[in-house]
Amino acid sequence: MTLRLYTRWQNSAGERVRIALNLKAIGYQYVAVDTLGSAAYAEINPQGLMPALEADGAVITQSSAILDFLETTFPDRPLLPDDPVLRAQSLAFGAIIASEMHALTVNRVRKQLLSMAPDADAARWVRHWLGLGFASLEALLQRRARRFDYCYGDTPGWADLHLVPQVSAARRLGVALDPYRLVLDIDARCSALEAFAQARPDAQPDFPG
Amino acid sequence: MTLRLYTRWQNSAGERVRIALNLKAIGYQYVAVDTLGSAAYAEINPQGLMPALEADGAVITQSSAILDFLETTFPDRPLLPDDPVLRAQSLAFGAIIASEMHALTVNRVRKQLLSMAPDADAARWVRHWLGLGFASLEALLQRRARRFDYCYGDTPGWADLHLVPQVSAARRLGVALDPYRLVLDIDARCSALEAFAQARPDAQPDFPG
Repeated sequence: MTLRLYTRWQNSAGERVRIALNLKAIGYQYVAVDTLGSAAYAEINPQGLMPALEADGAVITQSSAILDFLETTFPDRPLLPDDPVLRAQSLAFGAIIASEMHALTVNRVRKQLLSMAPDADAARWVRHWLGLGFASLEALLQRRARRFDYCYGDTPGWADLHLVPQVSAARRLGVALDPYRLVLDIDARCSALEAFAQARPDAQPDFPG
Repeated sequence: MTLRLYTRWQNSAGERVRIALNLKAIGYQYVAVDTLGSAAYAEINPQGLMPALEADGAVITQSSAILDFLETTFPDRPLLPDDPVLRAQSLAFGAIIASEMHALTVNRVRKQLLSMAPDADAARWVRHWLGLGFASLEALLQRRARRFDYCYGDTPGWADLHLVPQVSAARRLGVALDPYRLVLDIDARCSALEAFAQARPDAQPDFPG
């Protein structure tokens, strides 16, 4: 299967997919959307959002759908635990990050906030939602039936590949992470792995020097 | 398996799960969170958000994780197509609604917007995100390889159960839906079905008279 991932170095949802591809050792072609041009990309994804995965000509958008597609199509080295409850907890952890943290604080939302409310404090908006989100994630990690090396298993998977790019974004946006000890432990353990390191923004071919 | 769904009549993400349970003909106990009390609910889900599903004592949060759990545990009457690309397109359609429409316009976000930017026009904020979202959904429906009766199949499923509560919310919030003909067609077709009708806010036991 020929896979093309449309992303860019700073694309946080794309970083999730890059980690998944690395964890599963699946080869793919990296297409930098900025190099491609936005008109050409509109042919791929009219929404203009990243990432998109082209798999033998079919285009799949939305990182959670792409991740599920990879998990379904390449079942080796699974991202999700077999146990149905742990599987659901992993998915819920990812959904909190995707829908309640990233979705509310991503660049286009901050821009829209400032365009509609020029006096709004965008940094405070970001701190509010990321603070709530990390507190939820830390509480979920504390409530696990047993402590794993990673979020929901002794190998990294679905929850971890959501966590690491969100922790990086929070650091970039100046959010204090000290209270979230389990989050920080897992982030450090993941960041030491090649699959995560090679998915980082500064390891991408379009990273500006 | 004993299933308890913690929700309330107005809980739009909970309506998705109610539709899924109805489509799969799975019996469950409806627990109205307002009747239960927020302290008791904090024991179930410390985040306080709805819905949560209790399945033989294990608690699962986040509607997308609950829906996947139901699909995995009760594979009969599947919500997702077998074809991997249609499956991914269904999931992407649901993710746009969950992460880019609902997540940005839900009550707690509108309240936060007004608390940080008292002069902000919350109605305009809602129209902006829901307008962008519905335009994307309509474009995706237009790009399908063939026209199905429902979003991605000739029986209703994952994408449809996300769409219907979001269309209701948009109507309630005064968003004009006339430009989205395929969305409106599918919404009307779904709304005529018992599985959708019985999941509606006004059909819930805690609906106020």
